[in-house]
Amino acid sequence: MPIKAYAADAPGAALKPFEYEPGVLKAEEVEIQVEYCGLCHSDLSMLNNDWGVTQYPFVPGHEVVGTIAAVGERVTTLNVGQRVGLGWFSDSCMHCTACMSGDHNLCPTAEQTIVGRYGGFADRVRAHQEWVVPLPEGMNAETAGPLFCGGITVFNPIVQFDVRPTDHVGVVGIGGLGHMALRFLKAWGCDVTAFSSSADKETEAKDLGATHFINSRDPESVKKIEGTLDLILSTVNVDLDWATYMTALKPKGRLHFVGVVPNPLSLPVFPMIMGQKSVSGSPLGSPATVSKMLEFSARHDIEPVTEFFAFDQVNKALERLRSGKARYRIVLKH
Amino acid sequence: MPIKAYAADAPGAALKPFEYEPGVLKAEEVEIQVEYCGLCHSDLSMLNNDWGVTQYPFVPGHEVVGTIAAVGERVTTLNVGQRVGLGWFSDSCMHCTACMSGDHNLCPTAEQTIVGRYGGFADRVRAHQEWVVPLPEGMNAETAGPLFCGGITVFNPIVQFDVRPTDHVGVVGIGGLGHMALRFLKAWGCDVTAFSSSADKETEAKDLGATHFINSRDPESVKKIEGTLDLILSTVNVDLDWATYMTALKPKGRLHFVGVVPNPLSLPVFPMIMGQKSVSGSPLGSPATVSKMLEFSARHDIEPVTEFFAFDQVNKALERLRSGKARYRIVLKH
Repeated sequence: MPIKAYAADAPGAALKPFEYEPGVLKAEEVEIQVEYCGLCHSDLSMLNNDWGVTQYPFVPGHEVVGTIAAVGERVTTLNVGQRVGLGWFSDSCMHCTACMSGDHNLCPTAEQTIVGRYGGFADRVRAHQEWVVPLPEGMNAETAGPLFCGGITVFNPIVQFDVRPTDHVGVVGIGGLGHMALRFLKAWGCDVTAFSSSADKETEAKDLGATHFINSRDPESVKKIEGTLDLILSTVNVDLDWATYMTALKPKGRLHFVGVVPNPLSLPVFPMIMGQKSVSGSPLGSPATVSKMLEFSARHDIEPVTEFFAFDQVNKALERLRSGKARYRIVLKH
Repeated sequence: MPIKAYAADAPGAALKPFEYEPGVLKAEEVEIQVEYCGLCHSDLSMLNNDWGVTQYPFVPGHEVVGTIAAVGERVTTLNVGQRVGLGWFSDSCMHCTACMSGDHNLCPTAEQTIVGRYGGFADRVRAHQEWVVPLPEGMNAETAGPLFCGGITVFNPIVQFDVRPTDHVGVVGIGGLGHMALRFLKAWGCDVTAFSSSADKETEAKDLGATHFINSRDPESVKKIEGTLDLILSTVNVDLDWATYMTALKPKGRLHFVGVVPNPLSLPVFPMIMGQKSVSGSPLGSPATVSKMLEFSARHDIEPVTEFFAFDQVNKALERLRSGKARYRIVLKH
């Protein structure tokens, strides 16, 4: 039976109904009956071929929630009917050092759900069983999709760098990623500072978990909190005055990037040496960390703030995303 | 009794005999009878007032080895006659979060042995008891001085970032700092790659502990070892192609600076994100880490490669250091 999807024919084109034959289900693959799929900024970047790797027809969608419709013959971890999610990665080699160390998200040949294959804006989508993670009991399936990309992107560094509840953490950019970071860090027990260029987000940021709010584009405001933060998590895709952000870190502090900024960071070495400070980045997270995030989210009632569109309104949803007004993630539903 | 030292009257001037009255020994201070004192590049930078903080007359010397000549009334950790060393720091507040966490080297008000006070190019020098660390049994006192500045600078990150014997580590710059890093890392059990711009150092670097040798200024050679190193420790004070060095790191790898390079690092964020890589720096080490380094060095027969000058030949020693030909640390002796 063909899969019914939405695809674009060319860079930036409107999505139109599109069908394809998925072929025989591979032995370790599962097929998901899509119920919900988040719309992420990366879908837009891919649609526009911003990264030069898009193939057309292009089917977006990598924040999938649905139920298992079919399992390959060697699938042992999932059963038909089970509710699951799928994110940016749909497979990895399972044999390299990264995969064998539990860092599947660092596998150099990991398959990406919407790169060189068709994504989740469809009635069904397939992926390797290990990258399809069950939703825990009690989790709201409607809003869970964005956890599988935006959510894990900001949750993963909290785990990777051993953030403690006693830490003071800054989140730069209160949008699709940043708003989830505020919720995670609040539940994690941290003191949380939101940095945003939109003064009108202060009340919302505080509702989401921030204790403090600072104008991200004002170096003077950043200077005032010199030496107070253990971690700064940047989710933005604009160049800010990173050298000044470094001064906001305590000794041994870390400035961590999950958003790609346009220009190379320009960082003087001397203050980094004197304060034993680190700068780093990370991509998404492994299936084991996704699973940990889901359990934590269910237990703390953490969900992304979402707006809903029907799948056949996907072009309207894209327009909404382009406008920058979505608060904060868009989810398509069947 | 006045302290007999060697001081410069003005930036870059020759050192001349100089006497000063040290006053009453403070309650928690000890006085060291200097036997040996290393001559470090920082002495030269301070002599020239490169950092704008030098006061004249300036007495260099912050790699002191000697015996305790006198102890203040509240000194409990050291006894007269005991053999000790003193490095870049001579005191810290002992009360701030850094000091109370064992990170005395990150104390924002730590006193520096040759900044705003007189250093170890003298017959005696004083410091707070906690910053004066006993030499372990069996350690060669003649060559131990440089461990207290150059040595701890490269040993400290090995401890701070939990380097494992299974790690593959690169050392950039095979000089005063780098040659000690090779010895430490070899004894630590690591696979060690030396990066140097001097092809004639290959044999020496391998004798010191390196398994591999790479031209530090040739990006093509660095590219060839893509994805192979867990840690790169840079000891140089020149700008290299750091973005290419980042590619030599494994996923989760770290590029760490202990040498100040002239220009800000220029680092693209995308590869840092994709490989979960870190960039960092650190200054010297705490007294507890110095003590750990000394015990490890004594146990593994690690000592700096040194050249000796008599104290009254200090200007010749400075000339030798300026020539860049010293292999690898200069020690003055009484």
